[in-house]
Amino acid sequence: MSLGVSVGETVRFRKTVTESDVGLFAGITGDFAPNHVDEEYMRTTPYGTRIAHGVLVLGLASTASTILAGRIPGTTVSAGYDRVRFTGPVRIGDTVTIDYTVESIDEERRRVRAAVRGATQDGTTCLVATHILAVVADS
Amino acid sequence: MSLGVSVGETVRFRKTVTESDVGLFAGITGDFAPNHVDEEYMRTTPYGTRIAHGVLVLGLASTASTILAGRIPGTTVSAGYDRVRFTGPVRIGDTVTIDYTVESIDEERRRVRAAVRGATQDGTTCLVATHILAVVADS
Repeated sequence: MSLGVSVGETVRFRKTVTESDVGLFAGITGDFAPNHVDEEYMRTTPYGTRIAHGVLVLGLASTASTILAGRIPGTTVSAGYDRVRFTGPVRIGDTVTIDYTVESIDEERRRVRAAVRGATQDGTTCLVATHILAVVADS
Repeated sequence: MSLGVSVGETVRFRKTVTESDVGLFAGITGDFAPNHVDEEYMRTTPYGTRIAHGVLVLGLASTASTILAGRIPGTTVSAGYDRVRFTGPVRIGDTVTIDYTVESIDEERRRVRAAVRGATQDGTTCLVATHILAVVADS
């Protein structure tokens, strides 16, 4: 059965990364690196202020993949990511736009590979990755 | 200056993935895939129940990296991950053990590569990845 999506198809998801997002993410994961929770320390660094966890920003890419997955009949899961790079900081209050573009479709293995790009409001790339979506059960 | 860590050095981090973790992670990221929030639907799938977001589990690997980074003088950030694979489901209530082992150190580029393995309480691997930690400012 066709997966119902096409190469080149794109999903866009935008979200402002808030202070509560970063605080809750630290609490969920246990990652209390000063980068994310110590404003006074971060003022002394090249960043100047707290930055979001990279994996929090990657979570926004997963949200984009879920929007695409809604077009695929059946049950899908995230199989993983290749070459994830956090190419620039996301500061609290930054708005991130994720562009998620289907790169290839393997109908036999029931997998979709997609290029991920995340950018902050000034257009600076903050995230690149390749995502792998797997169809585990047809509906 | 030496980065202060050695090849083979390991950090272990364990955490139970709770219902509130999964619910809050959905709220932070916007990823309300049925996999994570629809128990009735998930009963009809091979998983039988809600599963955690893969990227939430990856966040526990970042926590392990932060523990290691605490041994490195200066400011470190996560540069990214290579070949992240969510190799098995993490169900609500599962306890995940992350083993984070230094694989190589590039003193010149100020980078540490580490092998990540996550396993649930029965020993099943749920996550593999390679992490890249970057030192951005010496203290």
